[in-house]
Amino acid sequence: MAEPRVTIIGATGAVGKVALEVLEQRNFPMSSLRLTASERSIGKKIDFRGQSITVEATTENILSESDIAFISANDDISRQLAPPAKEHNCVVIDDSGVWRMDPEVPLVVPEINATDIVNHKGVISIPNCSTTPLAMVLDALRPEAKIVSVIVSTYQSVSGTGAAAVAELSQQAKSVLNNDPIEVEQYPYQIAFNLLPHIGSFNQNSYTSEETKMLNETRKILHSPTLPVSATCVRVPVNICHSESVNIQFEKAITAERARQLLSNYEGVIVVDDPTENKYPTPIDCAGRDEVFVGRIRQDTALENGLSLWIVSDNLRKGAATNAIQIAEELVKLNAW
Amino acid sequence: MAEPRVTIIGATGAVGKVALEVLEQRNFPMSSLRLTASERSIGKKIDFRGQSITVEATTENILSESDIAFISANDDISRQLAPPAKEHNCVVIDDSGVWRMDPEVPLVVPEINATDIVNHKGVISIPNCSTTPLAMVLDALRPEAKIVSVIVSTYQSVSGTGAAAVAELSQQAKSVLNNDPIEVEQYPYQIAFNLLPHIGSFNQNSYTSEETKMLNETRKILHSPTLPVSATCVRVPVNICHSESVNIQFEKAITAERARQLLSNYEGVIVVDDPTENKYPTPIDCAGRDEVFVGRIRQDTALENGLSLWIVSDNLRKGAATNAIQIAEELVKLNAW
Repeated sequence: MAEPRVTIIGATGAVGKVALEVLEQRNFPMSSLRLTASERSIGKKIDFRGQSITVEATTENILSESDIAFISANDDISRQLAPPAKEHNCVVIDDSGVWRMDPEVPLVVPEINATDIVNHKGVISIPNCSTTPLAMVLDALRPEAKIVSVIVSTYQSVSGTGAAAVAELSQQAKSVLNNDPIEVEQYPYQIAFNLLPHIGSFNQNSYTSEETKMLNETRKILHSPTLPVSATCVRVPVNICHSESVNIQFEKAITAERARQLLSNYEGVIVVDDPTENKYPTPIDCAGRDEVFVGRIRQDTALENGLSLWIVSDNLRKGAATNAIQIAEELVKLNAW
Repeated sequence: MAEPRVTIIGATGAVGKVALEVLEQRNFPMSSLRLTASERSIGKKIDFRGQSITVEATTENILSESDIAFISANDDISRQLAPPAKEHNCVVIDDSGVWRMDPEVPLVVPEINATDIVNHKGVISIPNCSTTPLAMVLDALRPEAKIVSVIVSTYQSVSGTGAAAVAELSQQAKSVLNNDPIEVEQYPYQIAFNLLPHIGSFNQNSYTSEETKMLNETRKILHSPTLPVSATCVRVPVNICHSESVNIQFEKAITAERARQLLSNYEGVIVVDDPTENKYPTPIDCAGRDEVFVGRIRQDTALENGLSLWIVSDNLRKGAATNAIQIAEELVKLNAW
């Protein structure tokens, strides 16, 4: 069976680096791998499966020499390279927010809606890194009882912004500890030892773009176009993993025990929930893992037929690179590239 | 008019130190001030209004020589010193969780239920530091529309645990930045660059004691014994200020604009809510302030007649010392000591 020629566009960024790791770990079948990045990384050598790959410039031409291209660069590059993908016979798997809500573009979490992939027209989007774990948890629970509404407050790590924000958190933390002046570039305000209830840009209804993504993308992935979701997205001084405090109201009661069972049986979810032993997921424990971790599962004391729970997931892996590569695996399986 | 003799029990702790600052800033009327602490601080000198005060041992006897005693030490000291307060003609204002739900003990946020003070029997409790700001916001909004349910996820700073936890966060952050091994004492796991969805101890229903306090104390302060509240309490690597993401469902619609108005008019609350200018409260901005700050006020996209908002409040000030001293001011005003 032929193996696809693969390109990672944005290979030196936070997600691109992890994509290389995940391709290696999952032993993804490829006949070739090419890497592109922005100007200042061109010519850099990156080791992969014992070979040294030279980082190239990002051009449309590379699409004609690729079967699958992962894009995790910036919105402009996604805007520019996704539309011509089809005519180059390349499938773009795009990590940006540009194409996700386009009705022609499947928005896919393979555990939930892998079958949407077959309708692709050259571009498949992966969801926003805070949406994917939430959608998986909702998908695991909904066979038991219809979901009435979803409230979520997030605790999102700086790697969601990119490698420069990770560096800035460390630098600011160092400055605070040394009583040096703080430099602020990546966010409107200091993030070290602070919180910012602001991710993305503000919309007319005072929700942010990130919060609106959680509403719209969850609806699209779950094929539930009217599902009520309210998100509050907060940046926290954590390097890797997005965490989410979630309250879900169902049409009928569902016990915490039954929820634990459903989540444990769901592919890609691991339940870590033994309060008497201080067992619950934390970002440091879940960083570097491909699964979505769920704990603190309990009957909600405010919502009728409600459950509360706590999700932690590596935003660079299941929130980005792993999900993208799982989509590529489906393309290979379906012979749809 | 006679001025009370005041004692701070736990004067060298995180809250005790702030209580000294607040007494000074608010120019609280006192005929004397005595300070007690645990063994290792006895004999220490502390400057107050230009005088040097020597820290004493914590004994029951000091109650008989005090008119008002603030206790912010540990549960054992509160358990031991509150009951005999009355026979010593001393009013204890207690910061611990020991007496708050005792039906004989008023649980007071002066802006909400100052009148409950008159029924005191020698002990008045102040609420848990995450409850006070939430209760004030609910109290500001409820005249407009009855509250149906409250969902809250907290982002709580390490100073809520005490001075040792503040030191531990800095030490751990330093170790992480230097690639040194991490020492963990104050929490079950590392808190630097991490999150712990665990504050207090776990109850039978898998809620923590902190989460249960937010339910029970809010009901008691608001005199709303059946108000549905669901809290998820999370420790975050922030030094000072507790933040809260809150979703409130009302019996009838209330616009964000009207909520802004009601909150702005409420004593002790400051609205910081101008998304287009990146204006919202953050812990670093609100540390050292006595008020409760509210932003991100918006129509909830999931709850019918719902509002979402974001609260930040200095847990050592309005969450503890300031609230306690405001209660003492009421005692003086009512001549009830």
